[in-house]
Amino acid sequence: MAKRIGQYTIELDRMPGIIGYGTAVGKKEGEGPIADEFDNIFEDTTMGLKSWEEAESALMTSAINSALTKAKITASDADGLFSGDLLDQSIATTFGVKDFALPHIGLFGACSTMALSLSLASLMVDSGAMNCAIAATSSHFCSAERQFRFPLEYGGKRTPTSQWTVTGSGAVVVKAGGGAPFIKRVTLGKIVDFDVTDANNMGAAMAPAAADTLSGFLKDTNTKPEDYDAIFTGDLGQVGSTLLKQLMTEKGYTLDENYNDCGLMIFDMSDSDVAAGGSGCGCSASVLCAHILKRIQSGEYQKVLFCATGALMSPTSSQQGKSIPGVAHLVEIVHNKG
Amino acid sequence: MAKRIGQYTIELDRMPGIIGYGTAVGKKEGEGPIADEFDNIFEDTTMGLKSWEEAESALMTSAINSALTKAKITASDADGLFSGDLLDQSIATTFGVKDFALPHIGLFGACSTMALSLSLASLMVDSGAMNCAIAATSSHFCSAERQFRFPLEYGGKRTPTSQWTVTGSGAVVVKAGGGAPFIKRVTLGKIVDFDVTDANNMGAAMAPAAADTLSGFLKDTNTKPEDYDAIFTGDLGQVGSTLLKQLMTEKGYTLDENYNDCGLMIFDMSDSDVAAGGSGCGCSASVLCAHILKRIQSGEYQKVLFCATGALMSPTSSQQGKSIPGVAHLVEIVHNKG
Repeated sequence: MAKRIGQYTIELDRMPGIIGYGTAVGKKEGEGPIADEFDNIFEDTTMGLKSWEEAESALMTSAINSALTKAKITASDADGLFSGDLLDQSIATTFGVKDFALPHIGLFGACSTMALSLSLASLMVDSGAMNCAIAATSSHFCSAERQFRFPLEYGGKRTPTSQWTVTGSGAVVVKAGGGAPFIKRVTLGKIVDFDVTDANNMGAAMAPAAADTLSGFLKDTNTKPEDYDAIFTGDLGQVGSTLLKQLMTEKGYTLDENYNDCGLMIFDMSDSDVAAGGSGCGCSASVLCAHILKRIQSGEYQKVLFCATGALMSPTSSQQGKSIPGVAHLVEIVHNKG
Repeated sequence: MAKRIGQYTIELDRMPGIIGYGTAVGKKEGEGPIADEFDNIFEDTTMGLKSWEEAESALMTSAINSALTKAKITASDADGLFSGDLLDQSIATTFGVKDFALPHIGLFGACSTMALSLSLASLMVDSGAMNCAIAATSSHFCSAERQFRFPLEYGGKRTPTSQWTVTGSGAVVVKAGGGAPFIKRVTLGKIVDFDVTDANNMGAAMAPAAADTLSGFLKDTNTKPEDYDAIFTGDLGQVGSTLLKQLMTEKGYTLDENYNDCGLMIFDMSDSDVAAGGSGCGCSASVLCAHILKRIQSGEYQKVLFCATGALMSPTSSQQGKSIPGVAHLVEIVHNKG
């Protein structure tokens, strides 16, 4: 039985293990600071396919295949696939996962989807409802730009607070009785609305949700940020992560050197294109599955908090003048079960 | 511990109870054959709000509030809210649920969302990860038409195979140790792609998924359709439900008088506007929460299968000539725990 701690944190009884994780990214990500850690780097934005949407699906398929290969299993060994993406009606996911022929749990958490999918997959495995489950998500700069912002051909100037959507996907295979890393605790976040309306400043929209979930977890577990080797948010970027630190200070917590944001890790931040940092479901997903899990598996990190954040808006809601509520989900991942 | 049966069916250990359910629908639904069973009927398509999207959010809020009232709890007594809708980036859900301030599990299953949300909420409660959870979904004819098909002002002629999106929402409150109806077993479905490309014939796109999930459940549980008092799909409509019967016959099962489709129950089928029947997330949700659960609670039905179906497409994927894969999730709901 899962155990509830405090208000909203869930402690996993059997601590499922992550037996495989994989990534696939685009050219720009493949030239960034963690380039060496990705499984697959695709130079061509369409990957030779007919559309950017098809390419995004192919990224997800590739990341899942890498995760399955490393887990030394085939898709039919899994009992369910938890995934979603940023595109309208999650079409990158539908066409990216359908051939795995697994029970499909479609999710929408915007850029928080990696933490949401990993949380649910882990909880299902922990409960015995599934023995093995896959969590995945993706984003693609070109499919996201044309859907959310401007046609790429328009060449619109970007604001300094805007973020650059990552072309990438990450996938994790979770199994009962699997080895390290282990999923220890999970906090599913509330929707937090601070009435931010600037669609070019997602970081500010998401930071209050990250602060709510992170402080809620720390309170529920009676721990402090310094109790963890590393705390990652994704993808607040420069503006959002600075704001998060301030909000956490107000709540009595200090986010210090052990804190970083996936949006600040994936690109060379001196590149003016990326402005305030990386974003998109694929940002925190690919950083988690390329960089973070590896270090938990090796023991370099013993205890890590992974808190992915999402901005819940659509072009329609923005055009109608609605605010951009945020959401953040948190997963504690550890090297040892003890 | 949840128990896995056969390939993909999950038996719930503690059989959570449904302690409340609520509905809110529009004018046309409020004039149909089950009009008397809805909790709230709104005559005005915008409900006095600024947009159809805001109205859809308000339908969801209303349905959840009715469910909470009947459950005799407030939102803060629940531990999580599982919901999603048809709109891009699920904005009806975001703005419809944010003020409940609950951990938010955003889902995308197109019109299968009621079964998906109810399945996950029940599994979470069964596992102890949550004590009480809410499942909800919605759709709105006007917000869906303008997003998926044509501006309403255009007045495009509808094809006979097309379905009419239900303006409505349904919500269910599930609780550990709650009374009847009880959630007994769940089958989460695979994405099934029969290469249907006609966005005006969703029923044909979804029927193969319904057949896959329903026959999978019957095989896993070693039962037959006649073992259940009633089997409901939602929302295959006239074309899809006829096709489902054929597909089930091919698999050796007979869907007979105990079978019905939510898309055929909500509207007066002699109304030529509705063509092949109702559709949209709100179709199966409002029929479940107005008509079906009441009859399980009273004991009129002892054992019911609720299998909601979704068509996984977007205007972008249709314009790009992609097929319309389907998905169907199934929940077995019973009057007695024994």
